[in-house]
Amino acid sequence: MKYEFNITKTTSPKEKPNPDTLEFGTLFTDHMFVMNYTEGKGWHDGRIVPYGPVTLEPAAAVFHYAQEMFEGLKAYKSKEGDILLFRPDKNAERTNRTNERMCIPLIDEELYVEAIKALVHVDSDWIPQKEGTSLYIRPFIIASEPFLGVRASREYLFMIILSPVGPYYKGGLAPTKIFVEDEYVRATPGGTGFAKIGGNYAAGLKSQEKAHDKGYSQVLWLDGAERKYVEEIGTSNAFFVIDNEIITAPLEGTILPGITRDSVIQLLKSWGMKVSERRITIEDVFKAYEEGKLSEVFASGTAAVISPVGELCWKDRKITIHDNQIGTLSQKIYDTLSGIQLGKLEDPFGWTVKV
Amino acid sequence: MKYEFNITKTTSPKEKPNPDTLEFGTLFTDHMFVMNYTEGKGWHDGRIVPYGPVTLEPAAAVFHYAQEMFEGLKAYKSKEGDILLFRPDKNAERTNRTNERMCIPLIDEELYVEAIKALVHVDSDWIPQKEGTSLYIRPFIIASEPFLGVRASREYLFMIILSPVGPYYKGGLAPTKIFVEDEYVRATPGGTGFAKIGGNYAAGLKSQEKAHDKGYSQVLWLDGAERKYVEEIGTSNAFFVIDNEIITAPLEGTILPGITRDSVIQLLKSWGMKVSERRITIEDVFKAYEEGKLSEVFASGTAAVISPVGELCWKDRKITIHDNQIGTLSQKIYDTLSGIQLGKLEDPFGWTVKV
Ligand SMILES: Cc1ncc(COP(=O)(O)O)c(C=O)c1O
Ligand SMILES: Cc1ncc(COP(=O)(O)O)c(C=O)c1O
Repeated sequence: MKYEFNITKTTSPKEKPNPDTLEFGTLFTDHMFVMNYTEGKGWHDGRIVPYGPVTLEPAAAVFHYAQEMFEGLKAYKSKEGDILLFRPDKNAERTNRTNERMCIPLIDEELYVEAIKALVHVDSDWIPQKEGTSLYIRPFIIASEPFLGVRASREYLFMIILSPVGPYYKGGLAPTKIFVEDEYVRATPGGTGFAKIGGNYAAGLKSQEKAHDKGYSQVLWLDGAERKYVEEIGTSNAFFVIDNEIITAPLEGTILPGITRDSVIQLLKSWGMKVSERRITIEDVFKAYEEGKLSEVFASGTAAVISPVGELCWKDRKITIHDNQIGTLSQKIYDTLSGIQLGKLEDPFGWTVKV
Repeated sequence: MKYEFNITKTTSPKEKPNPDTLEFGTLFTDHMFVMNYTEGKGWHDGRIVPYGPVTLEPAAAVFHYAQEMFEGLKAYKSKEGDILLFRPDKNAERTNRTNERMCIPLIDEELYVEAIKALVHVDSDWIPQKEGTSLYIRPFIIASEPFLGVRASREYLFMIILSPVGPYYKGGLAPTKIFVEDEYVRATPGGTGFAKIGGNYAAGLKSQEKAHDKGYSQVLWLDGAERKYVEEIGTSNAFFVIDNEIITAPLEGTILPGITRDSVIQLLKSWGMKVSERRITIEDVFKAYEEGKLSEVFASGTAAVISPVGELCWKDRKITIHDNQIGTLSQKIYDTLSGIQLGKLEDPFGWTVKV
């Protein structure tokens, strides 16, 4: 191995959770990865240590100026017992694009992937095997310098924690009700929409609470400048199937370049389908519905892979998509992608990486 | 006192710094205020404890989703030895406006001010008395629940830390060079510009670095939707004196409602001057300059009180304002406001609060 990480094993391993009752993001494994950045020294001392608390000065920059970023991906255990990661190099790449925007020092992408592999390897007993479960991997970086001036921090912590998670939808794939947000804005040109940073999510909480209160499970974000064009659905990318064209918002700086989104696009193209990364207004989506041309809407993301949309509410207009049933295409993409992720299907794209 | 806070005094007080070499935000006093929020229980256990590290789970929401906010104000020691705060009730009010936007539970505003007073009282020996120095007060709130799902946290910490600071400009008031940012965006309607949250500052670092690299001390932000209207200067509000009208951006959700800004407006009105809270384009500012009507530009904020602008650079256009000298009005506002803050001048507005 090119990268050697010091490993300190826990002396008090925790009990493994019941795979039948796993939730999302509440339980953590026995170990974590930690690496420090110090100005002049660069990233150093990558190490695996027992999972435990982080101790920072109250003046640490992350608490005041939110100089921080995160990533999310999953490890699966195949029937054959192989441990599979899904395109981890893409998370490393996206981390550096985020870091560049946030004035956080870049990380060697090969080291990044090796750190994930090494940690998953140490806690491999924690990967649940029940259908629909997986080990969620959360790399994140926080600015740790204790200084109250507004400038980039000179010290950082890069950490990776692991959480065994259950299926996103207990009853399997199920259509969701989505509220089109036309008051609050998630991202704007010149802003940070393409970066995976805390601030984007903090700013979105208010809208999400509003949608929940109205009985919707997530919001559909419109563009910040004109509030006309569809951008993302909650924490996932959005696809609209209109007249056999599959449309998703283009990567122009305001949406997160989802790794699932990219995989969906490649998959659809390999099936000879027409996929367009282009702007489309919410008005046109509703018009397509009225003309009987909107056959499916779905969201893509690491958490649920594919999540079909059953209802869209925009101002006082509500539409039910595909009879509130999972669309054929949504189902086919879900089955194929999760089949590849779990090592059940062939992987012609070379997406999965063995640990 | 209506509010009683448990006080644990440090057993190892630190040495006080040399008042001649004080910087901003690097040194902290002996104590801090801490209060917890727990769902179902509300805010509880407000207490003063020795200044020391914060210990959180790596999964704490603040590290991932930046659910956090902060405030900033100053305590001064007058010649007579009185300890004076400047409009602390306004910081409490702004905190709750921020909290409302960020889904953070509101705090009793009276308790908030009492907590500041109690802490400043305990560390009153730390308030420097040299001309231009003060004790900077930093209240902040962080989401502490260890949970990786995207929703509002159910646990928070409210903390206050204190830092003795030197004068913002070592040589006294001095005109600054400001770069007009037309690529990156700080805030947009429907966003979080009016809230004092980490995410706004993290998103601004990139632009600030660009301006520094070009030899400017700060950026002037334009509106996010059209990049036409002037909004703020770095972490302060902006004023333009054109034809005896003093113009500052209106509070429409995209700029921080500065407490200094509000005080400047009240002061100018009390002097019978024409102050307008209205939109003005950067084009019109440059046009006014060309017509010889732009007499002064200045920024207002807690850190420097008033900061005159000597040069503005917008794309390839550069203008020198008031011969790169401090304007008469800027100087008069600075002298009056800092005179009131220090208890040197009468306080007809009832702005200062004795500890
Ligand atoms: C805002 C946002 N958009 C899209 C996605 C989907 O990206 P990915 O497919 O890489 O998980 C995510 C989360 O992961 C997200 O947070
Ligand atoms: C973005 C921004 N605008 C304006 C201000 C000025 O506000 P105040 O006068 O309350 O200090 C600040 C900082 O304090 C700020 O961070």
